Amino acid sequence: MIEASSSAASDRIKKAIRDIPDFPKPGINFKDITTILSDLNLFRLAINTMVEPFGKKKVDYVLGIDARGFIFGGAMAYNLACGFIPARKPGKLPYRSISVQYDLEYGSNTICIHEDAFARGKRILIVDDVLATGGTANAAAELVEKLGGEVVALTFLVELGFLKGREKVHRYPIHSLVTFD
Amino acid sequence: MIEASSSAASDRIKKAIRDIPDFPKPGINFKDITTILSDLNLFRLAINTMVEPFGKKKVDYVLGIDARGFIFGGAMAYNLACGFIPARKPGKLPYRSISVQYDLEYGSNTICIHEDAFARGKRILIVDDVLATGGTANAAAELVEKLGGEVVALTFLVELGFLKGREKVHRYPIHSLVTFD
Repeated sequence: MIEASSSAASDRIKKAIRDIPDFPKPGINFKDITTILSDLNLFRLAINTMVEPFGKKKVDYVLGIDARGFIFGGAMAYNLACGFIPARKPGKLPYRSISVQYDLEYGSNTICIHEDAFARGKRILIVDDVLATGGTANAAAELVEKLGGEVVALTFLVELGFLKGREKVHRYPIHSLVTFD
Repeated sequence: MIEASSSAASDRIKKAIRDIPDFPKPGINFKDITTILSDLNLFRLAINTMVEPFGKKKVDYVLGIDARGFIFGGAMAYNLACGFIPARKPGKLPYRSISVQYDLEYGSNTICIHEDAFARGKRILIVDDVLATGGTANAAAELVEKLGGEVVALTFLVELGFLKGREKVHRYPIHSLVTFD
């Protein structure tokens, strides 16, 4: 087992995240978190630190956002001994789904969950790798509330503080392991 | 902890997989495994049973295939205390990548991994939710070997036996928890 304070964990993980200039388009400095996934010690440290605030709270389901949120969300659901719900783009989920559309700088996106994903009153932890503008996270929270679920918190490996996504989802508890200002 | 023989686990999980007729297109009877993910007991049972053969073998990395392979792969990598490598469609990985193209019934697909995903000689377990025709799994194994890695095994929650994917990847050990003939 790895034991570390949350801030020591945060420092170790922050240093190992790789900058990729001009990805996915010119001018964007992409934070590549695959370097955390591929290091067994950092991956375990990230998951153990991310679940820590929720170990004693009742969480019924982890909702992971397609696709990198599935990696963290799957490991967190296993660790917390709860169910996992995938939130996906339209056309990917096989059963009847509900959707929320949200605006991007240019155009819009839509995410969906199965309409029978969970029963009313269940407590859901929303997980993604990165909090950027908050559009996707906010849409995921709306999906949970449409089905009568309660959003326990939103949790992220990385928060891009300068994009102010936190303001968009301020009505929920927000956790992020690493912040880039 | 859940204790169960592999065949009892297989029976419980098989019964809980949901058939979705005519998805993603008419004539296809899709096996919906989100019913396994959302049931905390079945999800844990699936992961615990899928990792069982590898607990005493050295596995350096779990390679998960985008997107549902990320959910199982993330939880398995956490459980096995090894690193995780995402295999993705072109344009999704931020760093320099290698790719393998493979044929579909109509057209082709390509999957990629980062060129520095692991060092030569490392032992890789390939994970996906479903073994269908074997095209994707076989391409993933080729990617591993291109980088000088060793494929420990391919493991799946579900095998669609009637599609004979096993024949395409016969040169590797293959594990599947549930088979539909």
